Amino acid sequence: MARYQVILAYDGTHFFGFQRQTVERTVQGVLEKALREIGWPGSTTLAAGRTDTGVHASGQVIAFDLDWRHSSVELQSALNANLPKDMAARSVKLAEPDFHPRFDAVSRCYQYRLYCKPVRNPLWDRYAWRVWPVLDLERLQNSARHLHGEHDFSAFGTPLKPGGSTVRNVTDAAWSLDGEYLIFAITANAFLYHMVRHLVSFQVQIGQGKRAPSANLEKLDVASNEIVQGLAPPQGLVLTEVIYTS
Amino acid sequence: MARYQVILAYDGTHFFGFQRQTVERTVQGVLEKALREIGWPGSTTLAAGRTDTGVHASGQVIAFDLDWRHSSVELQSALNANLPKDMAARSVKLAEPDFHPRFDAVSRCYQYRLYCKPVRNPLWDRYAWRVWPVLDLERLQNSARHLHGEHDFSAFGTPLKPGGSTVRNVTDAAWSLDGEYLIFAITANAFLYHMVRHLVSFQVQIGQGKRAPSANLEKLDVASNEIVQGLAPPQGLVLTEVIYTS
Repeated sequence: MARYQVILAYDGTHFFGFQRQTVERTVQGVLEKALREIGWPGSTTLAAGRTDTGVHASGQVIAFDLDWRHSSVELQSALNANLPKDMAARSVKLAEPDFHPRFDAVSRCYQYRLYCKPVRNPLWDRYAWRVWPVLDLERLQNSARHLHGEHDFSAFGTPLKPGGSTVRNVTDAAWSLDGEYLIFAITANAFLYHMVRHLVSFQVQIGQGKRAPSANLEKLDVASNEIVQGLAPPQGLVLTEVIYTS
Repeated sequence: MARYQVILAYDGTHFFGFQRQTVERTVQGVLEKALREIGWPGSTTLAAGRTDTGVHASGQVIAFDLDWRHSSVELQSALNANLPKDMAARSVKLAEPDFHPRFDAVSRCYQYRLYCKPVRNPLWDRYAWRVWPVLDLERLQNSARHLHGEHDFSAFGTPLKPGGSTVRNVTDAAWSLDGEYLIFAITANAFLYHMVRHLVSFQVQIGQGKRAPSANLEKLDVASNEIVQGLAPPQGLVLTEVIYTS
């Protein structure tokens, strides 16, 4: 029996969130079904974090214990052969027996993709949010700079445990252009529930001139009982990477 | 009654090809259903070309006659409100009464998208073809240059009418890098059935060193009763533009 660490990618469109459920199709449920088909005894898989319904991942990290007599590469092939089209193991490697993808993670990276057009584009809408009127990139970039550092983000989400800390340390947050897309990339030690989608919605209001850029700063470090209005839709969001020290 | 010209985009994944059918969901069938809901009397829509099952479009061109008392912009909004998520009218404008999207077109542009990775990526596979082993971009670029000009492309597809000409004039054909994607863009006066997908498959064999670059040239201008082996899958292909003189 050894512990394996898997980098998992999935298209979140047809998953009802992450956590195993009896009826709905979930990321964990589909993964564990594939694992059982290759001889996994069927306890519980561990994950770096739970993505919401409709949120995608290119770098989710999963761990499980398995008695496997072949190489990690062969395990990856066997797993991918049993996974549906909208999920894939991008890499599989041996991990320390006590490796935990959530507790050992030092930071997480998310990307949010949007585009500014007056008319929807059916070839883009699966992985991006359409925003109109157009956004001012410089205002977005300025507002993202205010996010850097340690702040109380209680206005932008709730802790996963009731009563838990709402302070998070953002080590990187920036907007960039990628062709006709605007990309918001953010890295933090951890995230509150819905935090990235609240931050995107809030900055979109700044980028459209509906809110002053300074309003962004004012909201930070002010313990708030009220979450800001507006939640960017899930399909623009991707969990891109989970970072470990070793 | 006036004739309207629409630039239509659709995600081809869930369409069983273009042409109206009694049972299957098709591009023409879905479009005509939406038009009927806004008062279209229900004859036949005209199209620049028929895309295969699973092929996408960002610039398909459609025309129809309609008695509409409001502006073209309002027609576009009404049409988009009645179209499903995987189809949208990107623009609507008045056309000459005898405008025909197929007969008046002087050229068509297609893009084919692929990526070279040993493992599939569920976030890319809807709009691209995964190819492995890796391709040599310079070999691809060289082979695309051979396509320019007027050639008999009978080795790469069949004419839409049995016994029709297999000579086509390629005005542009090139490979380029777009992040981790390789893009093949081709413009010609018209295309044979399956021509772009046969050309992509053929060039991928060249790019992988399975075929000499010169073999590409040899095949052109040789009237062939046999179509080359291999057809790139539909999901990488997009009809991007149809060009008219005026």
